[in-house]
Amino acid sequence: MKLKIAVLPGDGIGPEIMDQALKVTRAVCEKFNHEVTFTEAIVGACAIDAVGDPYPPETHEVCMQADAVLFGAIGHPKFDNDPNARVRPEQGLLRMRKQLGLYGNIRPVMTFPSLIHKSPLRADLVEGADFVCIRELTGGMYFGRPQGRSEDGDTAYDTCVYTREEIERILHLAYKFAGQRRKKLTVVDKANVIATSRLWRQIAQEIAPQYPDIETDYLFVDNAAMRIIQWPKSFDVLVTENLFGDILTDEASVITGSLGMLPSASIGIHTSLFEPIHGSYPQATGKNIANPAAMILSAALMFEYAFNLQEEGAAIRRAVNASLEAGVVTEDIAEGGKAYGTSEVGDWIAEYIKSSILVTL
Amino acid sequence: MKLKIAVLPGDGIGPEIMDQALKVTRAVCEKFNHEVTFTEAIVGACAIDAVGDPYPPETHEVCMQADAVLFGAIGHPKFDNDPNARVRPEQGLLRMRKQLGLYGNIRPVMTFPSLIHKSPLRADLVEGADFVCIRELTGGMYFGRPQGRSEDGDTAYDTCVYTREEIERILHLAYKFAGQRRKKLTVVDKANVIATSRLWRQIAQEIAPQYPDIETDYLFVDNAAMRIIQWPKSFDVLVTENLFGDILTDEASVITGSLGMLPSASIGIHTSLFEPIHGSYPQATGKNIANPAAMILSAALMFEYAFNLQEEGAAIRRAVNASLEAGVVTEDIAEGGKAYGTSEVGDWIAEYIKSSILVTL
Ligand SMILES: [Mg+2]
Ligand SMILES: [Mg+2]
Repeated sequence: MKLKIAVLPGDGIGPEIMDQALKVTRAVCEKFNHEVTFTEAIVGACAIDAVGDPYPPETHEVCMQADAVLFGAIGHPKFDNDPNARVRPEQGLLRMRKQLGLYGNIRPVMTFPSLIHKSPLRADLVEGADFVCIRELTGGMYFGRPQGRSEDGDTAYDTCVYTREEIERILHLAYKFAGQRRKKLTVVDKANVIATSRLWRQIAQEIAPQYPDIETDYLFVDNAAMRIIQWPKSFDVLVTENLFGDILTDEASVITGSLGMLPSASIGIHTSLFEPIHGSYPQATGKNIANPAAMILSAALMFEYAFNLQEEGAAIRRAVNASLEAGVVTEDIAEGGKAYGTSEVGDWIAEYIKSSILVTL
Repeated sequence: MKLKIAVLPGDGIGPEIMDQALKVTRAVCEKFNHEVTFTEAIVGACAIDAVGDPYPPETHEVCMQADAVLFGAIGHPKFDNDPNARVRPEQGLLRMRKQLGLYGNIRPVMTFPSLIHKSPLRADLVEGADFVCIRELTGGMYFGRPQGRSEDGDTAYDTCVYTREEIERILHLAYKFAGQRRKKLTVVDKANVIATSRLWRQIAQEIAPQYPDIETDYLFVDNAAMRIIQWPKSFDVLVTENLFGDILTDEASVITGSLGMLPSASIGIHTSLFEPIHGSYPQATGKNIANPAAMILSAALMFEYAFNLQEEGAAIRRAVNASLEAGVVTEDIAEGGKAYGTSEVGDWIAEYIKSSILVTL
């Protein structure tokens, strides 16, 4: 198969971990006989510095021409504490999501047996937790207009908007995932208070009968924030709107104790994008200490979701698990044991794939 | 001192737990020689059933005439799954907050040594956690207008609005709490994406220099959702806007493992209100099994915050702790041990106060 991949390393540790994902992707393509081309482009703070635009038109073009996008991370602290900054890295992210039509963000929440002791939760609660958070990514308050200030600057406003079409699209995606899993969907909203959530719940109640084999339940967002901690194993697929999803998916990611291990996929109309859930980790930039596993596992999701190449994805997962078992891990995982550098971990995983015997699933 | 208290039991278990808080309040007033009058009024689903209005004008009048309001809980499942219900119990809550000017919700997050094993978090992370969440309660998306639907019903919208005055008021309240505690304030927003949050951060940065002895830091809301689980002891006072606070305070409450024990205060312009953080727990209604401790501890906060009667508040806390140590607890705490009824626990705590020797703080 011919695979055309857009590569957007971004800021901070993005470039370092991306290098590892590319090594691994090359190794998989070699092993499984795919022809791969990578086209690199800039995004985020580095793009602001270079051309004054966090998501330049050239970068968008590269993404549109690709079959899938591998994305590192963006962001720089110099923008966070400046409420008056005119251009922000995050604006690039929002524009990219909108222009590529990345309407659904998928985050598998999974535990790694060898890392369970790192979870902040009691082991009995989190062991075996395995669910998927699906977040609507191009609607809601992060995109709604009007957004801004009164003339005197002393009143600020944001608008949350959702249309039937946006809600139906993400709910159908969520039902599709639930149908391939344990057949339970939890719709999270705040229908007791806000109008957009009432539309979400109304539409979910309309759609649910189309999926009679799937059990649908409803949770208010504040209640969901509690349940994720109290009883994470009660979830199979959780779906929610953009802002709620931003908060809940980050909350859900830390219960595993392995933030540096978790990948994500953003399903798009034009193309899909794959990125680690962790950020740009500016303090670690250039130190060869960042954990590349989440970025590498994002490449696994790319093979599975964008190219429907299940064996290739599985080969990457096996290699990452093998690296954990072999203790070839970065310092965040090593805990006083020997720590390997970012690129050594990437090399090891790529080598493992090249040298392993093909297993048919 | 003459204490005029408005009593709003509300729905579900509200009336049962309120009875216990009144017993305890009477016991304290007897012991400390205060003259107390209680005036009861309806609110929530029961008020909708009675007069078609979840917060009737008569109830508002009772609250306005009182020095403090004791509030039970509201809500009924028959409204939650009906996106078309015209009147909702929660509307009563929102109107009450707005009309009484309850701009700041205070939730102490504390652990009880004898209940630490019930926390979903690892004991080493949560033991000794002790912080206060302060949530803005009358602004933001729950009150912003316009809110509603397009004519065809297929687009819904909500508006989030904040004014300088609202933000300054709650930030000053938060600094006041921080000044009386460990002198650390964490301001939570989403200033990298939304306009209202950028106004919050700008104003916080303006105000911070007025409190040079207090350390101010800033967290994005999704990051805060992670930190509450990963490192709850890092917080002293956390302040945030209404919707973020709704989610984060509920999340913070479960890490203690003692949801049934946690009180809250809502600081008002006209009067202040005291209520347990748990809901109306409809399944337990009338069964004499609900834990009255959070309601009773809300009365303790009332003595402290509304009447500045510190010894009276402390006497209630001591009595509640004694009930835990004596094992006079409801079934949610008893864990297979002997469980007491709601009213037996209330009786025991009231008796303890009456029979205890006055200790001067
Ligand atoms: Mg986030
Ligand atoms: Mg809540």
